[in-house]
Amino acid sequence: MAVHCGRLALRTRGDADVLDITDGVEAVLRTCEIQVGTVVAFVTGSTAALTTMEYEPGGVTDLRALLDMLVPARADWSHNERNHDSNAHAHLRAALIGPSESIPFVDGRLVLGTWQQLVLVDFDDRPRDRVVTVQVHG
Amino acid sequence: MAVHCGRLALRTRGDADVLDITDGVEAVLRTCEIQVGTVVAFVTGSTAALTTMEYEPGGVTDLRALLDMLVPARADWSHNERNHDSNAHAHLRAALIGPSESIPFVDGRLVLGTWQQLVLVDFDDRPRDRVVTVQVHG
Amino acid sequence: MAVHCGRLALRTRGDADVLDITDGVEAVLRTCEIQVGTVVAFVTGSTAALTTMEYEPGGVTDLRALLDMLVPARADWSHNERNHDSNAHAHLRAALIGPSESIPFVDGRLVLGTWQQLVLVDFDDRPRDRVVTVQVHG
Repeated sequence: MAVHCGRLALRTRGDADVLDITDGVEAVLRTCEIQVGTVVAFVTGSTAALTTMEYEPGGVTDLRALLDMLVPARADWSHNERNHDSNAHAHLRAALIGPSESIPFVDGRLVLGTWQQLVLVDFDDRPRDRVVTVQVHG
Repeated sequence: MAVHCGRLALRTRGDADVLDITDGVEAVLRTCEIQVGTVVAFVTGSTAALTTMEYEPGGVTDLRALLDMLVPARADWSHNERNHDSNAHAHLRAALIGPSESIPFVDGRLVLGTWQQLVLVDFDDRPRDRVVTVQVHG
Repeated sequence: MAVHCGRLALRTRGDADVLDITDGVEAVLRTCEIQVGTVVAFVTGSTAALTTMEYEPGGVTDLRALLDMLVPARADWSHNERNHDSNAHAHLRAALIGPSESIPFVDGRLVLGTWQQLVLVDFDDRPRDRVVTVQVHG
């Protein structure tokens, strides 16, 4: 019956840097004292994305390798040519995975699995300051 | 503490037509006079999708090229053979990207970046009339 | 103005088993007697995903074939090597498609198309017991 808004400010290294933001989102959730509802997390910007995964070194390596295969950085992307830019692949990867996740919580806890974390993936080709908005709907 | 529902009716040209629907969604949001919450946008139909991207000609060209590579229209898709149809690739692309986005708003404004727009991508192989439902949760 | 929570317990066969969970989600929705709002569905675990598609045998066959092409099971994935595991491809496919969908409802009915179903795809390489949390926000 309430909405509560938090923000996570994050510094990334770019180039498919993967950050586990589960703890940050749970910290926002705890400030609400709401037991049942949904958390919406959203990353501002068109070269980063949110998803869930098992956050462990192998999975992170694989995710990077997969996206290098599916959406190569070195290709004749129109975005780069038109805008004298170099991060077209980052835009495409972010659009494919998407900027938000909605995660229910019950008894005050996100229904994530033990080996399932909420991650921010920054596909840009340089370090960035990122803001993730965390909205709690009870 | 409220829910408000709007609808966008859109005419697409098909074949990965990309429409910027940010203004339409913001217009629905303004009618609510709610300052903090989340907008859920959802496209009805199994051959279209919603995502966010920098809506500029290069990015649109690249998104089409990428999906032509990853999910080619010309392939022996079972959907086409079984149903005497021609848009199996559209179904697959839509399932991959997904039909909805959830975007928080603060101070009455969506937390989209300056170069981040909410877009409808219609992957079907013919023009379609589309409905995007816009739900505002405060 | 309310939140209601349901759970679907499902048994999958793994290996990209696709289950239509639309009826289950609608059953939860009917118990709420709310007419307008959004349903959030979320699958717990990092090797399964939710999306919408036309649930028919051809589309299911195609989705499996596409993901076999894009994210092959047999490859030198780091997750498998590091963890003596065999389901790295399942983790990657789940992260790509994502664990949740948010679907508005109006007049007590989800705004899905006639040929658009909400599906659970279990990418793991063995049968699993899955829980989908269904949160109804009015």
